[in-house]
Amino acid sequence: MSRVHNFSAGPAALPESVLRQAQEEMLDWHGVGASIVELSHRGPEFIQVASEAEADLRKLMSIPDDYAVLFLGGGATTVQALLPLNFAAPGQVADYVVTGHWGKTALKQVKPYVAANVAATSEADGFRSIPARESWQLSKDAAYVHVTANETIHGVEFRDEHYPRSGDVGDVPLFADFSSSIASEPLDVSKFGVIYAGAQKNLGPVGITVVIIRRDLLERAGQPRADILDYRSHVKGESMLNTPPSWNWYLLGLTVKWMLAEGGVEEFARRSARKSALLYDVIDGSGGFYRNEVDKAVRSRMNVPFFLHDEALDKPFLKEAEGAGLISLKGHRALGGMRASIYNAMPEAGVQALADFMRDFRQRHG
Amino acid sequence: MSRVHNFSAGPAALPESVLRQAQEEMLDWHGVGASIVELSHRGPEFIQVASEAEADLRKLMSIPDDYAVLFLGGGATTVQALLPLNFAAPGQVADYVVTGHWGKTALKQVKPYVAANVAATSEADGFRSIPARESWQLSKDAAYVHVTANETIHGVEFRDEHYPRSGDVGDVPLFADFSSSIASEPLDVSKFGVIYAGAQKNLGPVGITVVIIRRDLLERAGQPRADILDYRSHVKGESMLNTPPSWNWYLLGLTVKWMLAEGGVEEFARRSARKSALLYDVIDGSGGFYRNEVDKAVRSRMNVPFFLHDEALDKPFLKEAEGAGLISLKGHRALGGMRASIYNAMPEAGVQALADFMRDFRQRHG
Repeated sequence: MSRVHNFSAGPAALPESVLRQAQEEMLDWHGVGASIVELSHRGPEFIQVASEAEADLRKLMSIPDDYAVLFLGGGATTVQALLPLNFAAPGQVADYVVTGHWGKTALKQVKPYVAANVAATSEADGFRSIPARESWQLSKDAAYVHVTANETIHGVEFRDEHYPRSGDVGDVPLFADFSSSIASEPLDVSKFGVIYAGAQKNLGPVGITVVIIRRDLLERAGQPRADILDYRSHVKGESMLNTPPSWNWYLLGLTVKWMLAEGGVEEFARRSARKSALLYDVIDGSGGFYRNEVDKAVRSRMNVPFFLHDEALDKPFLKEAEGAGLISLKGHRALGGMRASIYNAMPEAGVQALADFMRDFRQRHG
Repeated sequence: MSRVHNFSAGPAALPESVLRQAQEEMLDWHGVGASIVELSHRGPEFIQVASEAEADLRKLMSIPDDYAVLFLGGGATTVQALLPLNFAAPGQVADYVVTGHWGKTALKQVKPYVAANVAATSEADGFRSIPARESWQLSKDAAYVHVTANETIHGVEFRDEHYPRSGDVGDVPLFADFSSSIASEPLDVSKFGVIYAGAQKNLGPVGITVVIIRRDLLERAGQPRADILDYRSHVKGESMLNTPPSWNWYLLGLTVKWMLAEGGVEEFARRSARKSALLYDVIDGSGGFYRNEVDKAVRSRMNVPFFLHDEALDKPFLKEAEGAGLISLKGHRALGGMRASIYNAMPEAGVQALADFMRDFRQRHG
């Protein structure tokens, strides 16, 4: 067996040591005589796993105590629908800043529940930039302002200076989809009202979603909704209002432990800067053979989309890459081209191998 | 390492051969060089896994073509909230037959959306029976009639004769929570409008829910709802409207293949009859040392709750059982006492070991 370098946008590569531990423990977790996937979520074994995962994630991301942390099924898209149900009055305005495909998806989910206002969008330039903060048309009494911290498809990522500062928008809280960049760099959580992320990119396995909620927001009445769609109930039930995706939670916990052991978010920020620079340098230095047109100031350090100058080279590129042990480089169908997703679990050696391959491919086909 | 017999109500025991295969494939699925948990849900590898799981489940349960089959995150409780949103007009009547804890939970979820009518309940007798079909107070224009096929906590299970016959309730479709008894015996799916089940009891791993919907019901307008809460969208998106819990889907697929190889639902029905009889015989023959007061005609073949005649014996019973390699026998906190969950993956040898232990414990403590 030989492991390849997997550039999938999510579900994505996991640390090999995490997979090995899960493999070793698959039939017998810590001598219990059963797999963790077979044990009750209310038993002492899983309660330990769940508590450690939360404590470790709080440590990794420096999450303050006045924030609740939920581990739920349903994915980030379900969160997008539940945000207005939980935090907006029926028909209240909610502001959306749209900087790519996933911002549009977030907007789509809330249409039945709020008067969504597109405060800013970069759609006119093909989602290659982030509109300047001064241009945002924010509403005075919005329930919240929603942004997508990193656009997985378009490869556009907010930097710290793009977020509204405290006082900028009165008491309106900032909600952010961090699905593809959570725990990739130090973040001041206290700037946000809600942070959410599907885990399958930067935090571990598919099938579990993290929702981080400033506790005072839970006092909002929201809209009529079933108990299972109510974040107050989930917080009260400690993410076990119903049976949680326990195996996924366990694997997330192993991944977070690995991130702490590797040096935490500061270290991953350094690695991401180096890894993404390797690829952007090859692209920008290719004399137009490879192309990424995203504003350099907001290029994503997690997802590097690029196009070959001639579409006819797409198939040979993918085929030869696969032959070189570099898989899942095909771009999202919404955009075409190529995409290299290089989350925390992608080693620098993998990115170096891709950069080398790209240079070599250009020489042979340029 | 030695594997124990695990009587957990869910997450529950999985077939050892399934766990071994998942273990072997954990770092490299079929020579791809990556784990299935790391691969895109839209890539050819996972599409194959997903399609096979659906085809195999359709074969196992003889699901007709005019039913859609969904594989989603969020658990059965989420389904309970989505049933009225998708299949009832705002404020329309929906009939609920409540035969235990989970029927009450189902009812709780729908309160914001429909006028729920408790058509029948066995709460007065402590949920030890199923009200006779003739006593059900069904509404004429109900959106649906909802039943809980097997009550996991109270150990009460519908038999075929308890379901409304075609024509009994006009065109009102029957919706059923089969979380703890799906694929445990032959079932005429065409009697039902919707069948749903969290997989973590009889179908495989935690973290994935199966929803089987008669396609004509998808034409109902339902109520205003986000796209991600809309079953029409999930059917159109083939359960990939957003990233599905792919690892859980994969493990479900392996479990369904195992069930087919073992002889299918007819074989599991025979095994369940023998396994449950082993335990009920010990209980009924114990001269009151063990007690199960459920109406014998509707005793569950999946979950066998029982009480010791003296509560002071509960702790020694659990401790000695664990010493004998029999774990997770503590009853649900809502009911107390003991509970042995003996789903498809529980071998007859495990149930025999428990029956032997129970007889021995009685001799020593009786």
